[in-house]
This record gives sequence, structure tokens and C-alpha cells, in this order.
Amino acid sequence: MFNTQFPAERILMGPGPSPVPARVLRALGAPTLGHLDPQYLAIMDETCELLRQVFQTRNLLTFPVSGTGMAGMECVAVNLLEPGDEVIVGVNGVFGARMKDVMERCGATVHALEVPWGDIFSLEQITAALDQFPKTKVVALVHAETSTGALQLLEGVAELVHGRGALFVVDAVTSLGGHTLLVDDWGIDAIYSGTQKCLSCPPGLSPVSFGARALARMDARKTKPQSWYLDVSLLRKYYLAGGGNSGGGRVYHHTAPINMTYALREALAIVLEEGLDARIARHEQMYRRLRTGLEAMGLSYIPKHSLHTLNCIGIPAGTDDAKVRRRLLEEYGIEIGAGLGVMAGKAWRIGLMGHGSTIRNVDLVLTALREILK
Amino acid sequence: MFNTQFPAERILMGPGPSPVPARVLRALGAPTLGHLDPQYLAIMDETCELLRQVFQTRNLLTFPVSGTGMAGMECVAVNLLEPGDEVIVGVNGVFGARMKDVMERCGATVHALEVPWGDIFSLEQITAALDQFPKTKVVALVHAETSTGALQLLEGVAELVHGRGALFVVDAVTSLGGHTLLVDDWGIDAIYSGTQKCLSCPPGLSPVSFGARALARMDARKTKPQSWYLDVSLLRKYYLAGGGNSGGGRVYHHTAPINMTYALREALAIVLEEGLDARIARHEQMYRRLRTGLEAMGLSYIPKHSLHTLNCIGIPAGTDDAKVRRRLLEEYGIEIGAGLGVMAGKAWRIGLMGHGSTIRNVDLVLTALREILK
Repeated sequence: MFNTQFPAERILMGPGPSPVPARVLRALGAPTLGHLDPQYLAIMDETCELLRQVFQTRNLLTFPVSGTGMAGMECVAVNLLEPGDEVIVGVNGVFGARMKDVMERCGATVHALEVPWGDIFSLEQITAALDQFPKTKVVALVHAETSTGALQLLEGVAELVHGRGALFVVDAVTSLGGHTLLVDDWGIDAIYSGTQKCLSCPPGLSPVSFGARALARMDARKTKPQSWYLDVSLLRKYYLAGGGNSGGGRVYHHTAPINMTYALREALAIVLEEGLDARIARHEQMYRRLRTGLEAMGLSYIPKHSLHTLNCIGIPAGTDDAKVRRRLLEEYGIEIGAGLGVMAGKAWRIGLMGHGSTIRNVDLVLTALREILK
Repeated sequence: MFNTQFPAERILMGPGPSPVPARVLRALGAPTLGHLDPQYLAIMDETCELLRQVFQTRNLLTFPVSGTGMAGMECVAVNLLEPGDEVIVGVNGVFGARMKDVMERCGATVHALEVPWGDIFSLEQITAALDQFPKTKVVALVHAETSTGALQLLEGVAELVHGRGALFVVDAVTSLGGHTLLVDDWGIDAIYSGTQKCLSCPPGLSPVSFGARALARMDARKTKPQSWYLDVSLLRKYYLAGGGNSGGGRVYHHTAPINMTYALREALAIVLEEGLDARIARHEQMYRRLRTGLEAMGLSYIPKHSLHTLNCIGIPAGTDDAKVRRRLLEEYGIEIGAGLGVMAGKAWRIGLMGHGSTIRNVDLVLTALREILK
């Protein structure tokens, strides 16, 4: 069957993971240290500082959760919500729907703000929802909806949300490092992402960041978060000396994924060496090049406001979805994504994330699709 | 300060992580695949099969949770417990106490069965607790209490627990791959472990296994597990084609930590190449060699039934705990563990786990301790 030790290399152009640079793979394989070794703590501190720069935030409480992106979603939910809290969640794809599910499992009453898949939410719709549900404690939006390829505009939302005393939560799994994302300037109170998308690190960690309002909410909790593993009141005592207050050392919580932290540190260093602005511009240029090529082939984009990091296109009538993806994989070694949820069988998702967003990959996938669809 | 890219190499003789073989680090750095790539699914299937062999179980539902050992603990708790359920947890150290906390956060009523730290539970004590709390639905014990170095005997427990219609849950974080552990023969219904102890893989995954009784309990739940990330009813549809039933494919849940799975597969292959019996015998031999040496120096073991994988010894009166550990680290590059919880400042914990349980390491740490304590 397959050689499970030396997999055939793929060009990862699906919805993530994205291609991982050799530098990051090499860092991943560095000798394992103890989680309380001063050397490791220095690596972790540096990783958190690099994360702050990539999130464009001064939030002290910025660290990688020891799980994949969905663990980050759950971390934000279990720490900010208590049973009975009311929440507004924008549901315009799989990940908004998941956030609703995750938050309901926290005992929250979730008001789903819905638009058709592929659409995004306007400030007017958010205002109307806040008017309808005045007890709302959290408003949560997905910045980059990986299931539909839609980019949600976030500017101006925080003012509406904070005006009602609520917190603004953002899912940035498929945007961090690929789209403009200004955590502080945009007033985002809590945010989570993944490592395997535009940061081009293997999956396994979920960067999160919590601002002052979120911290105050957590400090005022009447109940313990339902998850011990994701309890930020405990995690902060490990990730920040003294829990972020002056004085005091580190308190062991769990054994952090040491080698994954090495990889994330290296991936973030690469992001900042390129420069955030240059990186975001590259993602836009490559998106425009791919879009021009796909549309010239008669293929059309599903979302009105497309991400630059993920291209969600309709499958032409009469085309065998699985066969095209299988030929791309077997003949070209290219992975693209199938449709997810209601888009299953109707969409392809072509990722241009991080290390994978290159002219080489754009032109190759266009050439391969022309060959296979001809 | 430290070179965060090329850490000085340590000999890891603390409570975990343990030293990782070069083969495993190399596997970790193999090119990242997509989580739905047929090649990756083959690697994952093989990893689960190797895990079954190491757990000595035929449980189909055996897989690595995408988080560290504590995520495995939480996975077992959130799936087996519903609010109001009564549980008996053996608390004789930090990890039993954590299990109590984790289970209480699930809404369970936890009856702590307590003995002094370092002691273990007898069948008589377990029987008495079951008599006292006849509504008990789960009995949970820590096989290897990493905070005290005590080995809990597990044979005969399942018969008592099953006789009352309860499930038997075991924490095997520091025993899997280092001590005899017969999941099926000992009637264990649900078990979790970590990768960074006696399997000598970096931290980041938590192997779990659920038997038929546990599965029936999960299938009969009236409520959703409070964690979406750890919900086995969803996870099984990804880890087992058709969810473990005949027919049906895989359903995407979250993006698995691809590279960590490569590493775990390789680490498990190494365990089975050595052979479980030989490996367990090696752990016992190295433990005896270290114990003989430590006792000859006048040092004494804290637990009556010591683990072979972790040696918890009292710090001699008048000895500067932190200074000894610092000298071991700085002069010899050897990491040993400090005392945890009530043992802080009173105990050292010397790990002999997996790849680290060698005559070379035993004799080196004895030589270093003789030099530093003289």
C-alpha cells in the first residue's frame, strides 16, 4: 500500500494544512526539551511575543493552545461563557455552525444570525441582532469562513458590540498571516487561529489572544470553566510568569507540545522576516492571478467577498468531482479541497496559504485543471 | 540568552518528556500531508493498530486524542459522565486530584477515595467505597501516579467495579510502554495515556482506548458531551471508517496533528520491535540498578510500591533542592524532576522512561549525584 514512513510529497492546495517550509520541519525535529527547562521557557516566551506581532496586539495573554484550531475555539468559548449567557453567532458556513454547537455545549443560549452560505454579515444586520437580543454577552464572527471562502469584514463591529457591553470574538483560523487582521485596532476581545493555514506550520497548536475586557470577564466568573485543559486562569500561570502579574514564577499545568512550539516559533519568524504587509500583499496578488485564470476557464467563485487564502469555486455541471480531485492528487501530487457541508459535491476549495501562495503553485494548478477539465 | 533554534541537548530524566530517539525526531519532520489524504489515513490506521498492540487490547475505538495527556483524561471524563453521575476517584497524588477536578467540571459528584500520598489502594478499600456509594457509575484509578512514584495494582479491580454495574477508568500516562498493562485482560473500560513518557515520543498526543461497556455508556447518553473537540461520537467517524460500523467513509472532524502522528507511529514501531515484554523487563532492571545505587548513597524511596518508570526519592535534610537540580542541569545536562504538590521541596523525581531507561543514564545520574551531594 503506502509507505507510511516516507509519504509521497504533496503540494497542499486544499483548505489546510498548507505546505510547510523545510526550515519549519527542521525546527520541529530539534531535540526535545523539558517543558520547565529554562531554554524551553525562553523559546515559548519568544513564540508568544512573535504571536503578538502577527496578531498585531499588545495583549499579554497571547499563547498557543495545546490542540488544533477547534481547541482554540473551544478555549475561547469555555472561558468567556457561563451557563445561561446569551450569545450572537454569525452562521454562514460550517465554522459558524460549529461555534454555535460549541457554545451551546457551554450552556449558552446562542442566537444564530444567519445569511446564505457564501454571504457575509453587514453592520446593519449586526446592529439589528443586538437590538433584538439586548442581553447579549458575546458576539462571535468567523473572519475567514473556510467552508465557503467568504471574507467577513470586521471593521466597525467592535464599536457596536462594545456599545452594548458585549465582547467581540473572532475566528481567524484561515486569515491569520494571510489577511489584514488588526486585533487591537479592530477592538477584538478574544481571537483564535490555527497553525496549519497561513502560518504554514503543521497542525497541532491553536494561537489565541485575550484582551483586557475578556480578562475582566474571566476574572468575574462565578463558575469554573467546564474544561480544565483549556482553563485560562490555570494556563496563564504557566504561559506568563506570575500569571501576568509582577512577581511569581511559572506553575506547571500540562506538558506543552514542545516540538510543535519549536515549529511554530520558526514559522512565525519566517512570517515576520517576509513582513506582514508584504505577506498579505503576496496573498492578494496570488489570489488575483488564480482568479483571473480560473474565470478565464469559465469557473466561477461562490462567495461575493472571496478570501485571498481560499478560493471556493463552483464545480461545472457534468463534471465528476471526485475524479478531478483524484487525478490532481495522483497525476500531479496536488491536493485541493472538496466542498464541505451544504457545498459537498458542489464546490472545490483551492487554498493559497502561507508558503503555498506562490506563482509556481498558481500556474501549476491552473495548468493541471486545464488538462484535466479539457 | 539561549539559542532558541538549537537548544543545548538534555538527558531527560524527569517525570517526562523522556528522551526521544533520533528515528522519531526524523519521522516528526517528514513532509506534512493533508488529514484526508489516503496516505495519511493509512498512517493513522497503522498508528491506531500499533496502539492496540501496545495497550494489549482489541478495542476498535483506540486512537490518539489531539492534545497532551490531560486532554486524554478530559476526553474520557466528558464522554463517560453526565451531570449528576456519581464517581469514585482514587486520590493519592496530583493526578488523582486533577481527575476529581476534571470530573467535577463535568457535573459529576465525585467521591474521593483517599490514602496518604505515596500509598496505593487495596481491593478492600475499593470494595468498601463501592458499598458506601452504591450509585457509583465510574471508578477511576491512576496506574502510575507521576507525582509520588507509586504503582497502583489493577488486577481484580474490574471484577469489583463491574459487579456493581460501574465502569473502570485508568490513567496510564506514566505506565504505558514501561509497565505491564493489560487493558483487555484487566477489564479496563476506558484508558488514556501520553506520548512523552514511556513511548518516548514528543508530547502532543494522548492515546485513548474505549471498550464495549464504555461505548454502550456513550451511546446511551441523554446529553451531548460538553466538549465538541473531545466528543468521541464525532471523533470515531473520523478515526474509524463508518464510525466503526461496516460501510461508510470518514467524516472530517478537526485537522489532526499530522506530523505528531508520524512521530507516534515511529515511536510505537520502536516499542514493538523491542517487544513489550523485553521493554517492560528493561524498565524493571534499570529501576533496580538505580534503586540499588541510590539506596547505597543513603537516599530513600517515598512510595512503598515504586514505579519502575519514575523514582520518587526524599531529598536529604539540609540539601539545597534547587541547587542540586540546577547543577545537574548546567554541569551534566541532566534534567530530573522537582517534587510536585505536597512533595514540592521534599522529593526528587528521576524518570527512567522508554528510550531513557538505559544503563548509561542510570550510571551517569548516580555518578553525577554522588559528585554533587558529596
